[in-house]
Amino acid sequence: MKAALTRDLAAATSGLTYERIPRAGIEIAKRGFIDAIGVMLAGKDEPCVSILAQTLSPAAGDASLFWGPDKARAPEAAWINAVATHALDFDDTALSAHPSAVLVPAIVAEAEHLRASGRDMLCAYVAGFEAWADLMQRETGQYHTKGWHPTGIFGSIAAAAACARLRRLDAGATAAALSLGASQSAGITANFGSMAKPLHAGRAAHAGVLAARLAAAGMTASTDALEHPQGFLAAVSPAGAVNVGEPVTVGQRWRIVEIGLNIKKYPTCYCTHRPIDAMLELKQAHPSLDPAQVAGIVVSMSRRNAKVLRNAHPTTGLEAKFSIEFAMACALTAGRVGLDELDDRFVRRPDIQGLFERVRLVFDPREDPATGYAPHDQVSVELPDGRTLRSSPVALARGAAGAPLSHEEIRTKFMSCAARALPEAAAASLHERLSNLEDLRLLCSPPCSP
Amino acid sequence: MKAALTRDLAAATSGLTYERIPRAGIEIAKRGFIDAIGVMLAGKDEPCVSILAQTLSPAAGDASLFWGPDKARAPEAAWINAVATHALDFDDTALSAHPSAVLVPAIVAEAEHLRASGRDMLCAYVAGFEAWADLMQRETGQYHTKGWHPTGIFGSIAAAAACARLRRLDAGATAAALSLGASQSAGITANFGSMAKPLHAGRAAHAGVLAARLAAAGMTASTDALEHPQGFLAAVSPAGAVNVGEPVTVGQRWRIVEIGLNIKKYPTCYCTHRPIDAMLELKQAHPSLDPAQVAGIVVSMSRRNAKVLRNAHPTTGLEAKFSIEFAMACALTAGRVGLDELDDRFVRRPDIQGLFERVRLVFDPREDPATGYAPHDQVSVELPDGRTLRSSPVALARGAAGAPLSHEEIRTKFMSCAARALPEAAAASLHERLSNLEDLRLLCSPPCSP
Repeated sequence: MKAALTRDLAAATSGLTYERIPRAGIEIAKRGFIDAIGVMLAGKDEPCVSILAQTLSPAAGDASLFWGPDKARAPEAAWINAVATHALDFDDTALSAHPSAVLVPAIVAEAEHLRASGRDMLCAYVAGFEAWADLMQRETGQYHTKGWHPTGIFGSIAAAAACARLRRLDAGATAAALSLGASQSAGITANFGSMAKPLHAGRAAHAGVLAARLAAAGMTASTDALEHPQGFLAAVSPAGAVNVGEPVTVGQRWRIVEIGLNIKKYPTCYCTHRPIDAMLELKQAHPSLDPAQVAGIVVSMSRRNAKVLRNAHPTTGLEAKFSIEFAMACALTAGRVGLDELDDRFVRRPDIQGLFERVRLVFDPREDPATGYAPHDQVSVELPDGRTLRSSPVALARGAAGAPLSHEEIRTKFMSCAARALPEAAAASLHERLSNLEDLRLLCSPPCSP
Repeated sequence: MKAALTRDLAAATSGLTYERIPRAGIEIAKRGFIDAIGVMLAGKDEPCVSILAQTLSPAAGDASLFWGPDKARAPEAAWINAVATHALDFDDTALSAHPSAVLVPAIVAEAEHLRASGRDMLCAYVAGFEAWADLMQRETGQYHTKGWHPTGIFGSIAAAAACARLRRLDAGATAAALSLGASQSAGITANFGSMAKPLHAGRAAHAGVLAARLAAAGMTASTDALEHPQGFLAAVSPAGAVNVGEPVTVGQRWRIVEIGLNIKKYPTCYCTHRPIDAMLELKQAHPSLDPAQVAGIVVSMSRRNAKVLRNAHPTTGLEAKFSIEFAMACALTAGRVGLDELDDRFVRRPDIQGLFERVRLVFDPREDPATGYAPHDQVSVELPDGRTLRSSPVALARGAAGAPLSHEEIRTKFMSCAARALPEAAAASLHERLSNLEDLRLLCSPPCSP
């Protein structure tokens, strides 16, 4: 039988039900909601968010902005909230992308409009994630290297799948929604490091909400827009090696369980996370370690990761996100790397700046075939008396899918993020509700109107 | 000196002035406005337009929808109007794309908001066209073949350039606008033949308006997003052979004059236009020719063009747009191919349907290196007495840049299009105003409120 990717994917995602999803998948999806909404609240006052909100100047609607009293129509709310979610680059990663930054804002905006339940939202999230995983894994070429920001290009299709499920579109309309999502797929790697990067997540969330709405209203699109030789996968293909013939297994395999979500414990580039874990281990094992007395810090990591960390002498919080020197100085000095430390004043402290020169890199040339990175990172601290303290090798960052954070750690991150937008009691109540998302009839009252 | 495509293109387009543009370029741009606004009026009641307008349900603003009394904010007005402009596939072509369907709606919407003059609008159009031509000509690979709809992917950047010029952004902000346009570039060939195709033009117009607005408000983007190895041109490259190093010549050469616009004389696929011209020539030379008595019609054309014309037995006006059989039957019977003939009832007339079987194709294997098509098309009509009437070889469709329509023919097309939306006097007055666009202080009153 001829493969019919678009139609099969539409049939599979529109047919998902909450009851069929394994409990482990639901728990992961719930973490996606908690984490995304937390970092959305932390990011809501970033300049990229206010510039977008001011420029769109959205008309009033029934979907909340940043979980607060201001409301817009769902497409614009999804857009603005998604930019807030990705603004700090503190949101989860999976599939070489940032799935929750697109899916969660799209789903919560439409759910509020549709008065959908927590179970509907979780099912929509899984539909979006599984569609994303199916498409992403059909090519082994590197999307980033070709110039594509996977969050932008896959996000619009995955968000369309999620919103189509939320609207309970049938398989035919869902296929149109996927194809309309594919017609809006956009986002280029070259714009990393600028406000355009979070814009990609926002535009994808907007496109997804809109694709499902247009399909529901009768807009037509090709039923083979994903797999067609002049379709989405061929157009964006980095290596010209797309496997469009592999059967769709959404609803049979659960890739959300196989792959999981990597939750960021630190608001810095993911390439800094393993070294930060290593330094925090040393700091904990040697509480009397005096940063001022440290003679040198040696970080063993993959050259590929080091390339991303381009700022050896950061002077702002934004630059410090992409600096292994800052990450080491911060972890060693503060014993933590949180939002409070990603602050211009903290970055400019003389004791922090003074440590940058003492950080040296050694490159581990081995490549883990699964990730392309060194199998582990490691940190050594050289003391003035010539002794060296050496961390364990860190293969998985704390919070990675294979080394999940505890519920308490997830809550701690959420509360520190939400504190930037909500009083503590409101943040705690929101966390509690999100932790029981599957039992909520309606997500958005009263937390939306604190 | 290192090439800096994004910055150089931004400097060149932001520096264009009306006074420096050659008169021939202004005349071509004016044709773009007249033709696009005419077909926009003809297309405004198409289902793709009403579905989009109903789904967006745009808030009231200061930019006119379809030249009528309804108004929306400029980004949404540009979006909806652009879909109307491309809905009938009757709009102009150049650069393997539909430039005016994106540029004109974006410019008129922002111009109305900004209260810009006709000269500002013409200058913005030329800025957009020249940016488009510069980028399009840096790769010889075929974008359509890779899966990209050039109207969608180049349109958003060109519209950003046009709107940046209209807003008089400086070179720096214009560079950000171009990069933000590149981050929103989207549209795939596989969705041709569905409502998603005009959506590409609409989304590009919307993206362009928004990119310039976001850049004006301070949103940042990379200053090398077009030429970066992981930038726009590399990401969409069909053959991996982008020439990013060639200097920008915008403002020195005038590609709008070199390339021109192809104005469609018939509301059918452009591949039918040369055969229609040939058949109309025969019809004019032999006014007593009785279609019912014709034994056969032989069309000599390129196989590549014939492939696009997939509907041998159309039964609707939409299908008939992509049918050489209909094109021949219609031209022979009605002596014209206009909007009135692209109507289900006309298509289904027994005399029209009866001719389809008598049309035969012969393929001319020669390829004009410039176009990839046969050097010319030709039509022969076989009479019952065995005689054959043979048309001239037609190398250029009437209305092509190299065979421009007369002012009177342009006006005739405009009036027949506008008749679908406006009373005749209002249409005539609008045509008159557009024909003197360079002298208008404000385009949009009173024609917008007829």
